[in-house]
This record gives sequence, structure tokens and C-alpha cells, in this order.
Amino acid sequence: MDKVRIAIDMDDVMADTLTKALQLYKDRFGVSIPVEALHGMHLKDYLPKEHAPVVWEFLHSPGFFRDLPIMEDCQEVMKALWEKHEVFIVSAAMEFPFSLKEKHDWLQEFFPYIHWKNMVLCGDKSIINADYIIDDHAKNLVNFTGKEAYMFTAPHNMKETRFKRLNNWKEVADRFL
Amino acid sequence: MDKVRIAIDMDDVMADTLTKALQLYKDRFGVSIPVEALHGMHLKDYLPKEHAPVVWEFLHSPGFFRDLPIMEDCQEVMKALWEKHEVFIVSAAMEFPFSLKEKHDWLQEFFPYIHWKNMVLCGDKSIINADYIIDDHAKNLVNFTGKEAYMFTAPHNMKETRFKRLNNWKEVADRFL
Repeated sequence: MDKVRIAIDMDDVMADTLTKALQLYKDRFGVSIPVEALHGMHLKDYLPKEHAPVVWEFLHSPGFFRDLPIMEDCQEVMKALWEKHEVFIVSAAMEFPFSLKEKHDWLQEFFPYIHWKNMVLCGDKSIINADYIIDDHAKNLVNFTGKEAYMFTAPHNMKETRFKRLNNWKEVADRFL
Repeated sequence: MDKVRIAIDMDDVMADTLTKALQLYKDRFGVSIPVEALHGMHLKDYLPKEHAPVVWEFLHSPGFFRDLPIMEDCQEVMKALWEKHEVFIVSAAMEFPFSLKEKHDWLQEFFPYIHWKNMVLCGDKSIINADYIIDDHAKNLVNFTGKEAYMFTAPHNMKETRFKRLNNWKEVADRFL
């Protein structure tokens, strides 16, 4: 395919935010939550009501976003995407002020070829001008004005039916490489 | 006019970055540079060659962006713009990692009604999807895909002739209110 502009989300697309949150929850409360239990649900909605605020606490803690694990196959596929297309990393990070520099630094460590010109930290993603967007949140896809919005599969979005899906990074490669 | 989406730059549009840089230069070298001397020039190009790197040093120093003065009439006009239009604050901040949280915090202090959803920290502004953009840099205006790109007048851009101008915040009010 010709060179296109692709906007790619970070949390739960490039970075495994859920796995870290589940680990922190286990460390705090001693309870392991299997990923399968979150089918169609956000973690905060699954937890006992009195525990739900810890998710907010985790996400607002300094350091949370700096050492997130990388999603499977993301590094290899991203490198190839970068060489073939115009890739922008677009994260709705403004809600979490500590995450801003941490996300920059995480990208610089694990994807050092991604130029700062191609990083975007925002809130409402309707501001994004691109051909394609890949994101795990429907709210970031519904107002997209480009050619196609792809939902990257995550436990919380399993019941969503409005968008074409990319289930993993191998499928991102099949679509764009 | 009807409600439109306006993307507004921070440095040297909302925040007086130049005045702070000139003050730091004076503090370091004891030399006052009058703003008029910078007609059509960036500060780094005006300085003696051996001093030019201090501009980079200032901009990469923790704290630089946190206490910038606010441009004249910006607070009053911004409040009215916010009530009438869809305003996004869009800053090419990714080059300066320390600035990211500082810019968020500066906006929250001086423009507390501006929601995090409407803040964007990016690099290449061709990613921005809006009706209008107001910016002091030609590089941020040339690839704009909306209705009109406005150059906000600053000493460094005085020789630029390609764009319609807004010379100050009173003219922003005249155009959009």
C-alpha cells in the first residue's frame, strides 16, 4: 500500500497498562484477577466498589507509565511501520500529568527512532488529522475524520461491535505492511 | 460567527517565552537586548555565535515553562473565546520533555477552566484537525488543513508575508468574538 499517516495509541496498544495495574492490585490486595474476567469491562468497574478508586490512584502515581511492559510483537512491527508509513504516536495523556514526561521517556527508551515530532499527548482525539487510527477506546474512534478507525482488541472492549478490529500486532502488520 | 474549532499555540502567543529568555540572558551576561533588535530574527541567530547555545539550555531547563508571563489581554480574550468556540491549546512541546507537565500546570493555574481534553502537546502540527490555527511559527502554519492559518505576530516572524496576521489578543478578539 502507499505511504499513509497512521495514529497509534499507547496504553493497551503499545504499552501493557492493564498487566501493570493488575500486578499493583495483586500487590496491594493479594488477589489475582485473570484477564478473562474483564471481558467487556474496565478494571475499575470489575473491582469491589470500595477498591475501584485504586485504579485512579495507580494511574496518577509518579512512575506508573515509565516502565510499562511492551505489547507482544509491537517493537518489531512498529519498526517496519515507521519505515514504510508516516506514524504518529497519539496518547490521551493529559488527564495524567505525571505521565507526560514518562511517556516521552518510555518511547525514547524502547522506540528510540521515533522522532519527537511524531509524538502527540492530548485529551480529546477528535483533534487528530490522520488517515488511520488504531486505539482500544471507542470514544477515541467515533469522531475520527480519516479513512478508517481500527479498534485494537483489549479485554474492556470485547463487546464493542462498531469498528473493524486489529486483534494484535501481527494483524497490524498484515493490514499495513 | 458560528462556533468553530480554533487551535491556539502557547509559546509567544499565550505565554511570553521571549521576555523570560531575554531576562535570563541579561542575568547571565549582563546585556539587555531590546525586542526591536530581533526584527525578523530568532534570539539564537541574533546572539554572538558563542552565546547561541544558551537559548537551547534555557528551554531545556526544569522550570523554564512553569512561570512564564501571560501575554497582554490573553486571559480576558481566551475566556470569551472558550465560551463561544471550541478551543484547543496546541503546543509543539515534545522537543522539551521538562516542559510537558509544566505547560499542563501553567494552563491549569492561569486558565483553570480549560479542560485537559482540550490540551495538546505535540511536535509536528500537521497532525492537528481544526478550523483555524493561531501560531507564531510559519512551519506550524504551512501544512494546516483547516479553513485559515493565522500568524500571531512576534519579533522573529516580522518578515514573513505568507499568512494573514493577528498582531495581538485584541485582534484575536476582533476576528473571533
